[in-house]
Amino acid sequence: MEKSKVLVVGGTGFIGRRLIAASLAQGHPTFILMRPEIGLDVDKLQTLLSFKAKGARLVEASLDDHAGLVAAVKQVDVVVSALSGTHIRSQHKLVEAIKEAGNVKRFLPSEFGTDPSRMGHALEPGRAIFNEKMELRRAIEAASIPHTYISANCFAAYFCPNLAQIGTLLPPKDKVRVYGDGNVKVIFVDEDDAATYTIKSLDDPRTLNKTIYLRPPENILSQNDLIAKWEKLSGNVLEKIFIPVDEFLSSMKDMDFGGQIVMGHFYHFFYEGCLSNFDIGEDGAEATLLWPDVAYTRMDDYMKRYL
Amino acid sequence: MEKSKVLVVGGTGFIGRRLIAASLAQGHPTFILMRPEIGLDVDKLQTLLSFKAKGARLVEASLDDHAGLVAAVKQVDVVVSALSGTHIRSQHKLVEAIKEAGNVKRFLPSEFGTDPSRMGHALEPGRAIFNEKMELRRAIEAASIPHTYISANCFAAYFCPNLAQIGTLLPPKDKVRVYGDGNVKVIFVDEDDAATYTIKSLDDPRTLNKTIYLRPPENILSQNDLIAKWEKLSGNVLEKIFIPVDEFLSSMKDMDFGGQIVMGHFYHFFYEGCLSNFDIGEDGAEATLLWPDVAYTRMDDYMKRYL
Repeated sequence: MEKSKVLVVGGTGFIGRRLIAASLAQGHPTFILMRPEIGLDVDKLQTLLSFKAKGARLVEASLDDHAGLVAAVKQVDVVVSALSGTHIRSQHKLVEAIKEAGNVKRFLPSEFGTDPSRMGHALEPGRAIFNEKMELRRAIEAASIPHTYISANCFAAYFCPNLAQIGTLLPPKDKVRVYGDGNVKVIFVDEDDAATYTIKSLDDPRTLNKTIYLRPPENILSQNDLIAKWEKLSGNVLEKIFIPVDEFLSSMKDMDFGGQIVMGHFYHFFYEGCLSNFDIGEDGAEATLLWPDVAYTRMDDYMKRYL
Repeated sequence: MEKSKVLVVGGTGFIGRRLIAASLAQGHPTFILMRPEIGLDVDKLQTLLSFKAKGARLVEASLDDHAGLVAAVKQVDVVVSALSGTHIRSQHKLVEAIKEAGNVKRFLPSEFGTDPSRMGHALEPGRAIFNEKMELRRAIEAASIPHTYISANCFAAYFCPNLAQIGTLLPPKDKVRVYGDGNVKVIFVDEDDAATYTIKSLDDPRTLNKTIYLRPPENILSQNDLIAKWEKLSGNVLEKIFIPVDEFLSSMKDMDFGGQIVMGHFYHFFYEGCLSNFDIGEDGAEATLLWPDVAYTRMDDYMKRYL
């Protein structure tokens, strides 16, 4: 079967770049939306040109240019959005364009995190983001656009080598803050693997109108598991500072908006266990079961890069 | 001869990344200063880790940590700074560390543009930057630190595919603003080539305490030459709007600080011809004559990436 033509929107970001690389690697004709603002950022432009050199096609259009977006969407079969958090709402423009174009066989909005359909109870102010994602889902479904939602859980770069410490991306050297008793199961995913699974889903009938959860069995780990792996790798035993839930939540109060959003996520992941405390039902499927051929990266191998 | 050990400072920036790649490619044991603030930027950190995976060594120290800088510098033979414009002054801290360490055989401060020693007459506010670079040179020379200054002229990504248009990095589609009569000779350099020549200079006795000018003969081009090359490549004839010098200079007045700096550079390059209007004297040498083996990139080949 011929591989679908894919348009990536948000192709210069953290996950977008990986989606393009995965799309090219899996043999999809790959198109990238080149927004005018990207053309002013020398690094982002060079990133786009490096993908062009590898065979991707750049399609110029602004998110505010409806006709341009429709024309871009008409060139492809599948649209994958990797727009960052601040642009969630802009994706309604993409939905409008896809609706008008009428040819798209699959749309993947920018999700790649926690499943928002299970986060109606989330702490403010972070809940607003889940609500926006749900509003977008309703617009997609109201327009009868075939879709797939990807719940990729914790991207390793942000959560794993720092042993889930807030405010750093590097491994701690002497002390580590442990949330609660540190035994809640969290799910870590190598971001390149997240991109690989996402692209695998595009032409797979088993993923149509479903949510795909990325749950690599060996990467379902508690914070204590993660710390133990790092201690073994580094040969360095860390002092553990256990943070009771009340202390954690009360420390949020004085933070700015961004800080509160981050803390809210950590609360749900590491105290509540929101990533692992449910069974995937009929509306979903699990990535490593769908595509057992993907050799995903284990977190000790991931952390070796930081030694 | 064994290749010098190189420490790159500012390794995640536009030219820094290329210097590291060139240093590794030319077989230098390559060290990168990992400043704490880099560890908070996921993309910069991933860039550093990708270099680590290719054999570079990350050395942790802040620019404000004198002892840490001295220790970093003591591990290498050569220090190359690629700190961006806003950090020019911080390089005095590097000079202090190199002075104390006492082992460095060559220091290259972050230059890579116009030769500041010829820009004492430059327009304000841009002149302040040239003055800061000259102050740094005086500190280097007062400390008797062996050095090389690299004058790399116009990095292609910023000046060539946009046909020297201000406010875009992409080729214009229908109109092009031409400075004066468009016949002043400017010098364009592929930024990867700039990095290659820079690394070539590190162990070369001919470059000790000299300024190395990058003047690839086929890249000494007027704006008209550049436009003609693009028109030939793209098959698209552009409308030329000629901007007399008075009009150009008076349009600067209402601009903000950053805009005035950019305009000042364009004035000196495209009206005054400051890159090409002098002969290299005894204190300098020209890169393509020193290393004729480097197959540098011509600007039509460079621009093909943008077609």
